[in-house]
Amino acid sequence: MDSLVNVFNRRSIRKYTDQKISKDDLHTILRAGMAGPSCANTRDWSFIVVEDKETLIKMADANGIYAAPLKGATLGILILGDLERSVEVAKDYWIIDGSIAGQNMILAANALGIGSVWLGTYPQMDRVERQRELFQLPEDKIPHSIIAFGYPAEEGVLKPDYEEDRVHFEKW
Amino acid sequence: MDSLVNVFNRRSIRKYTDQKISKDDLHTILRAGMAGPSCANTRDWSFIVVEDKETLIKMADANGIYAAPLKGATLGILILGDLERSVEVAKDYWIIDGSIAGQNMILAANALGIGSVWLGTYPQMDRVERQRELFQLPEDKIPHSIIAFGYPAEEGVLKPDYEEDRVHFEKW
Repeated sequence: MDSLVNVFNRRSIRKYTDQKISKDDLHTILRAGMAGPSCANTRDWSFIVVEDKETLIKMADANGIYAAPLKGATLGILILGDLERSVEVAKDYWIIDGSIAGQNMILAANALGIGSVWLGTYPQMDRVERQRELFQLPEDKIPHSIIAFGYPAEEGVLKPDYEEDRVHFEKW
Repeated sequence: MDSLVNVFNRRSIRKYTDQKISKDDLHTILRAGMAGPSCANTRDWSFIVVEDKETLIKMADANGIYAAPLKGATLGILILGDLERSVEVAKDYWIIDGSIAGQNMILAANALGIGSVWLGTYPQMDRVERQRELFQLPEDKIPHSIIAFGYPAEEGVLKPDYEEDRVHFEKW
């Protein structure tokens, strides 16, 4: 798929068919997650890939009502900030680096015809703590976001496009 | 450009030719910045586009030594978290939403043959405050990151690819 078309036709998909995602496509999605820039190239993230239906339901319940699409997803990826990798003087860039990884995975999936929706976890600390507990995470791994993936069973909605008033030239 | 190729061949470019970026391409880059998902579709960002050489130098100086590439860039975009738009219960998603916008702009630029490098501002608060002062920003606009853009005058370096040990299946 053309790269710009891919960026512009992405939309959040919350309903999925039963079609499995192949190992190759999953590998491409994860590789895309690792292909973005990160602070001082620390690559301060890790990923938990979940296909087990029961675990997906537990993750969804731990993440609040807006995470319900995960219950019908083919797989979910929990992005973790991995502080083991981060630079001491700039520790909190894991939030930005994990977000870059998430968007790259969403775009790679879209290019493969796979839909997805971003489910916010951090910085809502109740969600963060519940995911931490569910996966028994070490202290230095921080639940960042969950992306639900699956072949689309709905069209999704394109959101507003260019908004002129959000762009300022040379000064505020 | 093929979408997956675009994701995988992106690299940070810190040296640029004198070639200008057209208005159309700038529009495409900004539109890409607005095409990602955001928390509850708040689109809680704004952008300052800078082409003026003197301002680029001031922005670079305000952002620390690693921002030096901005001095030779064709243009820089300062991403702002725009709290005027954010949801009260989930205010701090602007950090994630601004990051998604940044990566989308970088990928759109790459698809157009334009190089870029991500210059971290937030959460290093000295940098945030200096950008705020430089642009005399209102309280509810938070400097997030600067992306420097220009046609590449260097190859850039591809970073490590897939790392197996960063992926966990079903459990930590």
